Amino acid sequence: MKAYSLVKDIIAERGSIEEVYWVACGGSLIDLLPAHMLLERESCRLVSSAYTAREFCISAPKRLGEHSLVVACSHSGNTPEALDACALALERGAKVVALTDNADSKIAHEPLVCWVYPWGTDVPAGEVPSGIAPLIAAELLEQQEEYEHLSGMYQGVGIMDNVLPAARRKVNEELAPQFAALCQEHPFLYILGSGPNFCQTYGFAICSLMEMQWQSCSYIHSGEYFHGPFEVTEPGVFYFLQMGSSEFRTMDERALAFLREHTDTLMVLDALEYGMDQVPESVRAYLDPVLFYAMNVELRAARGKVFGHDPDYRRYMGVVSY
Amino acid sequence: MKAYSLVKDIIAERGSIEEVYWVACGGSLIDLLPAHMLLERESCRLVSSAYTAREFCISAPKRLGEHSLVVACSHSGNTPEALDACALALERGAKVVALTDNADSKIAHEPLVCWVYPWGTDVPAGEVPSGIAPLIAAELLEQQEEYEHLSGMYQGVGIMDNVLPAARRKVNEELAPQFAALCQEHPFLYILGSGPNFCQTYGFAICSLMEMQWQSCSYIHSGEYFHGPFEVTEPGVFYFLQMGSSEFRTMDERALAFLREHTDTLMVLDALEYGMDQVPESVRAYLDPVLFYAMNVELRAARGKVFGHDPDYRRYMGVVSY
Repeated sequence: MKAYSLVKDIIAERGSIEEVYWVACGGSLIDLLPAHMLLERESCRLVSSAYTAREFCISAPKRLGEHSLVVACSHSGNTPEALDACALALERGAKVVALTDNADSKIAHEPLVCWVYPWGTDVPAGEVPSGIAPLIAAELLEQQEEYEHLSGMYQGVGIMDNVLPAARRKVNEELAPQFAALCQEHPFLYILGSGPNFCQTYGFAICSLMEMQWQSCSYIHSGEYFHGPFEVTEPGVFYFLQMGSSEFRTMDERALAFLREHTDTLMVLDALEYGMDQVPESVRAYLDPVLFYAMNVELRAARGKVFGHDPDYRRYMGVVSY
Repeated sequence: MKAYSLVKDIIAERGSIEEVYWVACGGSLIDLLPAHMLLERESCRLVSSAYTAREFCISAPKRLGEHSLVVACSHSGNTPEALDACALALERGAKVVALTDNADSKIAHEPLVCWVYPWGTDVPAGEVPSGIAPLIAAELLEQQEEYEHLSGMYQGVGIMDNVLPAARRKVNEELAPQFAALCQEHPFLYILGSGPNFCQTYGFAICSLMEMQWQSCSYIHSGEYFHGPFEVTEPGVFYFLQMGSSEFRTMDERALAFLREHTDTLMVLDALEYGMDQVPESVRAYLDPVLFYAMNVELRAARGKVFGHDPDYRRYMGVVSY
């Protein structure tokens, strides 16, 4: 499936799209958030909101209807909350596109449009949700209004396929061993990031560390850091700063300067040193999350080896009832 | 100032309001978020977004203009990021309302409309930002579209003045000593909540605990908890669950059932046992944060006494340069 023709067909079918709701849970929601932020910033016409799927069902927007597009994502295709959200959206007459890795899952049935994506380290960035979602958003902008960076977005998504392999090697050589070692010494860490990439600050915390490594941590927005959370900073408190490559970077730089002065336990992953300088500046903000997701994967794997904790092992998810 | 006449005058001046941006930092932003969620859910016309002020300046929405209302909040009235955001909004021709406690501050000057609010335990709920913001949102809905729960919202805000004194006594008798004791045994805790009240889950973490008590913690959405973070749960890990009183409560109840089974260190503050049953059901979701903020204040004060850590003491904020 291609974002261009998907969006073209939807607009042709519905006449126009006025609202876009990005709905999923956990890691799948995280992959949709930068696209939501792109629309919030660039659109003069569309309403865009993002919801964890259960909350979408509880407080569905009154305007949800036939000119709404709901983009859902469920990797397994069987997430009950995502299925409920799609059912509610269809009941209300909305157009629903569901991204899933599983063509044989419950979510993969008409009348919703199912976009089955492949998965794995070698899959191109444009074929997984973190690349698909910004392309859908960019096409919606371009086809209904205008988006001067559409070609830059396609170009940037393509460049990520060159950026990621080198970045994976670099993070494993330079940061992964230190990260695993610091996790051995610290039962807790703070992760900082900003802008659209804050989704991967959250993702590093809730998916890579809490879920896959049982590592306690917290996630702080680099801009919000100075309005409260920085008071807890002191030597011995472990901070991991995700330095973005885009216009939001100024917030991360301010946090960096403060952290360098007020803790002795700081790790910095600077996107500009990991290849994001190759990506057009106009779209870096929405592709930094693709880089940081890949880095989060390497860092949790490195920690997992040192701790003997396989990132794929679960004690509750899909194991006990809840 | 009154929300009714403020909104009436703004609509009269601008013809209509099409976008509302809620812009502040830290605790002041927290107080605006439930109003944003009310508009997202109920409006068929307005766009609503909420931003930490620095991010608003970096990625100001393209549609920000003369039919936009920016509601800013700065308790001190001198927060540089909030001042910058107001200046940007005024440059773009937006109507700007700034809430502040400080009539002599930098933010309190024309052409923005300054709403100076009093502060203190005895100030009515309708006169501080956490009450003012939902009333502004409700009036915007009613005066431009319709909002069937407008009278319920006014009634609910009024009832909070009866709810809070009793709730403060109750939390100090029942939960505060246990909370302070558990903080002595645990260098870290997780706070869970959902819906509009998630702003106070975040607030308990970043303001009451990280900022005012230098207590490390993390904040997890009760719905998202099951999509990753719950894997870190085990006996000995300290959880504080904010049980809301509204339609979002079902997510907190699910978390409660899981936590009871999988940790031995759980504190629950149930809004329905703290007086929220007196508030009209239709607006409880937007007033739970008023209760939980008040409870957060009592809990941090109780911890502060046990630790000898005055919640008003700062080592960085307004003390060092950053």
